[in-house]
Amino acid sequence: MAIEGRSDAKQDGRIRLGMVGGGQGAFIGAVHRLAARMDDQYEFIAGALSSSPERSRASGAELGLAPDRIYADYREMAKAEAKREDGIEVVAIVTPNNVHVPAAKAFIEAGIHVICDKPLALTLKEAKSLEALLKRKNVVFALTHNYSGYPMIRQARDMVAKGELGPIRLVQAEYPQDWLTEDIEKSGQKQAAWRTDPKQSGGGAIGDIGTHAYQLACFVSGLTLDELSADMTSFVKGRKVDDNVNAMLRFKNGARGMLWASQVAPGNENGLRLRVYGTKGGIDWTQADPNYLWFTPFGHEKRLITRG
Amino acid sequence: MAIEGRSDAKQDGRIRLGMVGGGQGAFIGAVHRLAARMDDQYEFIAGALSSSPERSRASGAELGLAPDRIYADYREMAKAEAKREDGIEVVAIVTPNNVHVPAAKAFIEAGIHVICDKPLALTLKEAKSLEALLKRKNVVFALTHNYSGYPMIRQARDMVAKGELGPIRLVQAEYPQDWLTEDIEKSGQKQAAWRTDPKQSGGGAIGDIGTHAYQLACFVSGLTLDELSADMTSFVKGRKVDDNVNAMLRFKNGARGMLWASQVAPGNENGLRLRVYGTKGGIDWTQADPNYLWFTPFGHEKRLITRG
Amino acid sequence: MAIEGRSDAKQDGRIRLGMVGGGQGAFIGAVHRLAARMDDQYEFIAGALSSSPERSRASGAELGLAPDRIYADYREMAKAEAKREDGIEVVAIVTPNNVHVPAAKAFIEAGIHVICDKPLALTLKEAKSLEALLKRKNVVFALTHNYSGYPMIRQARDMVAKGELGPIRLVQAEYPQDWLTEDIEKSGQKQAAWRTDPKQSGGGAIGDIGTHAYQLACFVSGLTLDELSADMTSFVKGRKVDDNVNAMLRFKNGARGMLWASQVAPGNENGLRLRVYGTKGGIDWTQADPNYLWFTPFGHEKRLITRG
Amino acid sequence: MAIEGRSDAKQDGRIRLGMVGGGQGAFIGAVHRLAARMDDQYEFIAGALSSSPERSRASGAELGLAPDRIYADYREMAKAEAKREDGIEVVAIVTPNNVHVPAAKAFIEAGIHVICDKPLALTLKEAKSLEALLKRKNVVFALTHNYSGYPMIRQARDMVAKGELGPIRLVQAEYPQDWLTEDIEKSGQKQAAWRTDPKQSGGGAIGDIGTHAYQLACFVSGLTLDELSADMTSFVKGRKVDDNVNAMLRFKNGARGMLWASQVAPGNENGLRLRVYGTKGGIDWTQADPNYLWFTPFGHEKRLITRG
Repeated sequence: MAIEGRSDAKQDGRIRLGMVGGGQGAFIGAVHRLAARMDDQYEFIAGALSSSPERSRASGAELGLAPDRIYADYREMAKAEAKREDGIEVVAIVTPNNVHVPAAKAFIEAGIHVICDKPLALTLKEAKSLEALLKRKNVVFALTHNYSGYPMIRQARDMVAKGELGPIRLVQAEYPQDWLTEDIEKSGQKQAAWRTDPKQSGGGAIGDIGTHAYQLACFVSGLTLDELSADMTSFVKGRKVDDNVNAMLRFKNGARGMLWASQVAPGNENGLRLRVYGTKGGIDWTQADPNYLWFTPFGHEKRLITRG
Repeated sequence: MAIEGRSDAKQDGRIRLGMVGGGQGAFIGAVHRLAARMDDQYEFIAGALSSSPERSRASGAELGLAPDRIYADYREMAKAEAKREDGIEVVAIVTPNNVHVPAAKAFIEAGIHVICDKPLALTLKEAKSLEALLKRKNVVFALTHNYSGYPMIRQARDMVAKGELGPIRLVQAEYPQDWLTEDIEKSGQKQAAWRTDPKQSGGGAIGDIGTHAYQLACFVSGLTLDELSADMTSFVKGRKVDDNVNAMLRFKNGARGMLWASQVAPGNENGLRLRVYGTKGGIDWTQADPNYLWFTPFGHEKRLITRG
Repeated sequence: MAIEGRSDAKQDGRIRLGMVGGGQGAFIGAVHRLAARMDDQYEFIAGALSSSPERSRASGAELGLAPDRIYADYREMAKAEAKREDGIEVVAIVTPNNVHVPAAKAFIEAGIHVICDKPLALTLKEAKSLEALLKRKNVVFALTHNYSGYPMIRQARDMVAKGELGPIRLVQAEYPQDWLTEDIEKSGQKQAAWRTDPKQSGGGAIGDIGTHAYQLACFVSGLTLDELSADMTSFVKGRKVDDNVNAMLRFKNGARGMLWASQVAPGNENGLRLRVYGTKGGIDWTQADPNYLWFTPFGHEKRLITRG
Repeated sequence: MAIEGRSDAKQDGRIRLGMVGGGQGAFIGAVHRLAARMDDQYEFIAGALSSSPERSRASGAELGLAPDRIYADYREMAKAEAKREDGIEVVAIVTPNNVHVPAAKAFIEAGIHVICDKPLALTLKEAKSLEALLKRKNVVFALTHNYSGYPMIRQARDMVAKGELGPIRLVQAEYPQDWLTEDIEKSGQKQAAWRTDPKQSGGGAIGDIGTHAYQLACFVSGLTLDELSADMTSFVKGRKVDDNVNAMLRFKNGARGMLWASQVAPGNENGLRLRVYGTKGGIDWTQADPNYLWFTPFGHEKRLITRG
């Protein structure tokens, strides 16, 4: 049944899960843990939950980890867990962006599967080095482009793949937010602080949310980017990363697209929206109402597809 | 943190949870188990998951229950669990309606707390007998009017309670569905079969969804019903319970209201909506977009309240 | 072409139109004149625009009527215009409700066609007397249930008539407003004053807007009312007419319905909405977005019908 | 009163209006005539309604023009009307784009005011030559960027001008349509034929609807464009003009923007939308629901502004 995450897996026990990052004051780690419980296929048993050993310990205790499965450092954790017979099978990396690749490498080297937050890396070079390592190691590496998990996004992708929209001509993706309209990074807001620090984040709106919009655009359309032209701006005084990105896209099949990612657009909380148009129809999906997918076969009435 | 269900409870271990009903082919039991995992304050360890002993056993095994915690009968379960030192602390009753009160009584007698699905009982008399028992026993009895858990419904109730709408004049509640537009109960659909069997359900749309709309109306408005006039109809040929209910409500403070519950309104999946109007403002909430609450202070612009 | 109101009529000249009511300070008369210009099939040439002769004269002059076509009294106007070779062919009666029938009778007696505002009459008896007169006279009598002119309402009616919804089971009509939430009739607001004066209006929300909702319900569904139960309330202290009406409807074919008309529901400007459900599908229309009609064939996706 | 277009003008008679274009088979001319009737400040009395003398005559007769006020040619019309004492005071030019400037010049030379459809001209040079002429002649020249007449657009402009949004950072404008998704210009659809003929239209989506989006963006934001980068595409095989335009905008104050105009986006009829964001708030308006304006003051709830 759809509501229960697992069935046969139940017989064999849950997958042993560790986590890097996600301690007190963090945001996305708790979402990972909640999702793991919903799925019911994971058992969370080990963590290096913070770059501060004290906070890692306190966070781990609060979350009910055994003391010997709480680590001060992800390198130490990777080695120790790899040695244990009951060691973790997979690790979730939910740190600031600059730790993604180094931490992932430590676990991959140790033969442990990796679930890594986006964006993948700070630079193309760093990403390529990870790719090279993955080619040598037999582990699963998953990047959490979570929006592609929505049933209606899967539906949209299937419809495109089946040709219900015809050859794709246009892909319009946007992800406006407003939480960085003012310089809250200066007032100690932890999430804003690391996300606007280029050393930790590698970039601003483009990496934080533009990646989501871009991944969704490609995931649904099935297209590969050929060229792009982008206008990246830092509107807030003193901000060191982009807080608005306008981009025009050209795909290899000749399709065109636009991508807008912004963190300074008042009135938008998480305004992710994707529109894809082909010769035979168009679809429209917005994250605020994720269970609806609009589909218009050209020349016919608009239809509202739901999970049913 | 909001995303994690528990904190201090973690230190002391989770609440030991049992379940009556919710085996293979059931619907709402899986929702209870999912919610319990999200909350992370419960450990599901025992069950009488079906009125069929075989199905109960198979369901329990599939869900990972220990063999000695799978029961063929809820009476047996109540007694056995009450005797164990590690027995369940609370039971979720997720059966057809006719089992609600008998099962609840068995666990209440055994001193075990109860989470019971709505509607409470088949008759007023049955409900009163449960009430009498509860007055003698020191257990918590919770009825799952789940929609009242939405943050925006809590927000709405707070706003009414604080007088932001002024004295309430009107309460309009509706819950249209369409899944019983045709006589699917005759084709072996299990959910339809028991819900349209008056012996098991006690009634149709009024008990299944009308109760939700009514509870929400009272929960948010804070009003108590005085009088009502209802027009209950069975539109589908051969159906033994109502599949549409129109009702007019009069509350003790003089407020008026309407309630519509239907299972034969094509185009409505779970169209629960509540509107409350007072002398100073009005609110509007719909379950399909649960994180939005419309609020209009009289004479001013409509405002969209979100979880923020 | 749809945008131009007339074509062949153009050759023969426009229809000569007079008006009773609609002078300075009135509301709906100007809407009639605007609509007549849009249609381009009428020429507005005479009027008894106010019960005050001075205001009638001033209003007529302002609107460009010839002095001898401005009347102090509708009885005088009916007689004078009937005698002229170039007299009006049709009169629009846009007065408070108590004048509808007397004025209509005067023009009908004079052989002049009538376009009359709703509600028709103050009492059933008054309406019957008009009906009797109409049976004897060969004139067209039109009641302005204007909402039935929307293209999507025509579309809805056609769909019901063609059986696309199957036999109709449910008709839900509502028309909430909020402009009478407070007792503005006491502060000299002219529209509120006569509408809440039972001598002039004959009733409150039921006649002013409930009639619209009811007419639309019947117009689209094609059904005839059999019985009803209504709860009419005056919420505002000192108000002499109803400002909220809740009603349950039973139609002759066995269909059920609800009707809600309110002038005290903050946040609603002109919230007219109609939903009709049959065995094979449902439709949903709302006046705030008049060019959209939702249609769900049972078991299929919701569709958005537009004027195209 | 708002509903009546005129008041004092009434005393002095209506403005005498002529029209170039707008005969049988045309689209926008009828809209102009309808609008003129609604306003009630114009009297339509002369026209060169088609480039075909026969069609001009037939169209004029159908519209009730006097035979001597129907012209075969706009040059002849400009001269003849300028000589008459009762000649037109203003002409509406509602032709294909290539006739805009030549016709405008003819009437400007004759001292007659001009209401001209957009886009202004086929080339910048042509536009400049018109500008030069206008500097020498004392006539009013109005370009019909009609969307800027919506009350909510006026409201939006006022709010920006008053600083309610703070300094503007972002302007997102879009105007997707779908009517040219296929090559209907080849099947004799008159509107498609001239609009996709570069000799008559000067360009495709950019001129036909991109101009509307661009004008609205500037009109509301009060900003002046500094630079732009655009990607113009002809998706339909054999089409000689662009049917999709993606553009990135940079305004002189440092604001950024995006503009999307498309005629090949299935599911969009006239999807004009404008969003403007400043340091203090954001607004969102869409043409399909023109009487609504969303306004979010940063850090507060979204508000729905209506005409009230």
